[in-house]
Amino acid sequence: MTGPPLVLASGSPRRRELMERLGLAFEVAPPPEGLEPPWMGTVPPLEFAADLAGRKASAVSASRPDAVVLGADTIVVLDGTVLGKPSDERDARDMLLRLAGREHLVHTAVAIHGPGGERRPVASGIETTSVRFRSLEADEIAAYVATGEPLDKAGAYGIQGYGAALVESVRGCFFNVMGLPVTRVLALLDGLGWRYEFPGRLAPR
Amino acid sequence: MTGPPLVLASGSPRRRELMERLGLAFEVAPPPEGLEPPWMGTVPPLEFAADLAGRKASAVSASRPDAVVLGADTIVVLDGTVLGKPSDERDARDMLLRLAGREHLVHTAVAIHGPGGERRPVASGIETTSVRFRSLEADEIAAYVATGEPLDKAGAYGIQGYGAALVESVRGCFFNVMGLPVTRVLALLDGLGWRYEFPGRLAPR
Repeated sequence: MTGPPLVLASGSPRRRELMERLGLAFEVAPPPEGLEPPWMGTVPPLEFAADLAGRKASAVSASRPDAVVLGADTIVVLDGTVLGKPSDERDARDMLLRLAGREHLVHTAVAIHGPGGERRPVASGIETTSVRFRSLEADEIAAYVATGEPLDKAGAYGIQGYGAALVESVRGCFFNVMGLPVTRVLALLDGLGWRYEFPGRLAPR
Repeated sequence: MTGPPLVLASGSPRRRELMERLGLAFEVAPPPEGLEPPWMGTVPPLEFAADLAGRKASAVSASRPDAVVLGADTIVVLDGTVLGKPSDERDARDMLLRLAGREHLVHTAVAIHGPGGERRPVASGIETTSVRFRSLEADEIAAYVATGEPLDKAGAYGIQGYGAALVESVRGCFFNVMGLPVTRVLALLDGLGWRYEFPGRLAPR
């Protein structure tokens, strides 16, 4: 017996890569744009991320009631301020200047919907990882931004590519910084009765 | 002006992959086998790893006096005992059973030789990362070992592949667990007057 289809409600290539590493069979269905509720900035960042992860999973689950749908939202927080995706190169440089030589938090909210197309998650959680950057000189930051890597990423860096040269240490789940807290997701699925089995199968408990 | 050739004295595909992520131009020259000194087990593990990293770099540097040569040795330590590469599947299962649900240490010793072919490192260091495994059931361990991933790796796991499903959290440099503490290596090179510049050049300071 195998489980229901697994759908990743995300367009992130990094999340897809992590699911692939686990050998899991899954489909990718990016949620529609513009799911952010109008009250962004008026609620605490963690609540916002949790809500948005749920909206992503819910939007995809509505058309895939046969599937287990996984939504996620990752935010970078420094001194209580959320650093989103940079609007341009200058914004990216400003963010990296603030992150340099310091520790910040990366939160990924995860929401699992279905099967059944209900509007509420059947399981959810938030994983937090602390990330410390080495100190950076202004010309280094400019050169990193010029690689193009920061422009589509929350906090203006990717920990996997050139960004490996920026990050001195982490505390917590490393994969969370890439956008998906792997063992946390597996634990949530396990709690729903779907156990991950090497080399890549979800089997009923 | 560009720096001298950079040579990685290691056969590890994971170390090579990390260097490639940085965009660095480098050559790979695996050191000869059998460099382990006869007194393995009679000195503290960290001293042993530091010595072996130096022997690897020195062996390669002797034939490449034109180059900066980077040697490394990674060890996994649980309760003061070094877990090397498993001798067979049973040994791998035993190691993973010990690691499950607990925290262990991964140390990578790094030694840089040359240019000049001297027998002593011009820079060296040891980076330590703490890694926590989730709890594992015996049949999960057997299935993970059956993937073949653990067999050529110290501590019987790879954090990059299926092993992502094993590791709950880390404290310290993540890339150290893959075999090369990236920012530490760049800091050592920087101390020698070779600064890493995006997108992948060592330039004189």
